[in-house]
Amino acid sequence: MLKIGVILSGCGVFDGSEIHEAVLALLAIDRLGAKAACLAPDRDQLDVVDHSTGRAADERRRVLVESARLARGAVKVLGEARPEEFDAAILPGGYGAAKNLSTFARDGAGCRVDPDLARFLEGLHAAGKPIGAACIAPVILAKLFGKESPELTIGADADTAAALEAMGARHRRAGAAEVVVDERLRLATTPAYMLAGGIGEVAQGMERLVAAVRALGAAGAGS
Amino acid sequence: MLKIGVILSGCGVFDGSEIHEAVLALLAIDRLGAKAACLAPDRDQLDVVDHSTGRAADERRRVLVESARLARGAVKVLGEARPEEFDAAILPGGYGAAKNLSTFARDGAGCRVDPDLARFLEGLHAAGKPIGAACIAPVILAKLFGKESPELTIGADADTAAALEAMGARHRRAGAAEVVVDERLRLATTPAYMLAGGIGEVAQGMERLVAAVRALGAAGAGS
Repeated sequence: MLKIGVILSGCGVFDGSEIHEAVLALLAIDRLGAKAACLAPDRDQLDVVDHSTGRAADERRRVLVESARLARGAVKVLGEARPEEFDAAILPGGYGAAKNLSTFARDGAGCRVDPDLARFLEGLHAAGKPIGAACIAPVILAKLFGKESPELTIGADADTAAALEAMGARHRRAGAAEVVVDERLRLATTPAYMLAGGIGEVAQGMERLVAAVRALGAAGAGS
Repeated sequence: MLKIGVILSGCGVFDGSEIHEAVLALLAIDRLGAKAACLAPDRDQLDVVDHSTGRAADERRRVLVESARLARGAVKVLGEARPEEFDAAILPGGYGAAKNLSTFARDGAGCRVDPDLARFLEGLHAAGKPIGAACIAPVILAKLFGKESPELTIGADADTAAALEAMGARHRRAGAAEVVVDERLRLATTPAYMLAGGIGEVAQGMERLVAAVRALGAAGAGS
């Protein structure tokens, strides 16, 4: 059975993983008959946002602990995950990808990626295993694999697309539920809530993203 | 367009709304072409649970604020919601239904229901509008409408079923993704994670629950 690591960054769009994207990734993986294993870094969140007001809250929360809410407890420490035990990875979006998994929210194209995440994704990538990313999370793929000129999408936002290209990626415009597939590098990306008007589009995009990742994995296994 | 109130109780299975159930209710509502409006009480959670360990955390969180994570910000105060502005309500499960929306987790059949929730659901019910509940949330319907002998399910757990019957309900055993419909009282219930082995079954159950609620509403409108 295909084992897909789902990389979480907290629980809530403004300071962690976008909840709908994460849950719909888990559903799409289950419906393909694959196994999802949730992973998150064991570190403080950059911040905590009161989602009812959009304002910063004077609190500290841990990425792993909040991610466990999405996983119903079953989340493992990213730093202990070995790429050879996984067939692929999916990164849902949410500001957590740009605040907790990388410093993109603060540093743009000059961002750093969490070292445990970098090691994990670079290990998968070096082994020819596919990686999918939604919403803002493709910035992490741009940072890690920019030297290989990956084709990626974050939808249509001009500033974010420019940052992607500054990191070496080739940006492709896409609709909310469309998936851009880089077959050469085995990367798949979809805009999700960067563009989606509702949860139905997000569900469709996440289904297509997971299907694309599985197809890239099958192609990899055969090559 | 049908407007369905989705009653949230926080964000996370052990101290709030079960996240998968809540998100998949929102998806099912969207796919039916209806409009979901998230509602939550503006009060402290009974407790905060570290979902990575299952242990109590020494923190205070507000039900409304955490529920806003599930709703991407768009949550309204339950105490300000008027039943006449809604066509139906759905209650996802999670311990929040038994800790924050009622005192069932502590008091069993002798529980109290949050007064704002009681007023809202009693208003819908008096107007012949349907209510759906998943997982442990049917205990709230048993408490509020027990005098009318509603047919409800919480799956197959003997102790919880006995508590439901002690409150006046007639318990019906059901599989994880099955829905028990009380057409007379316009109530629909499904076990979801009381029994489900995975997110796929929960998605199916929530789809059927929302479809049953819509059908009960259509029947009500025509009677």
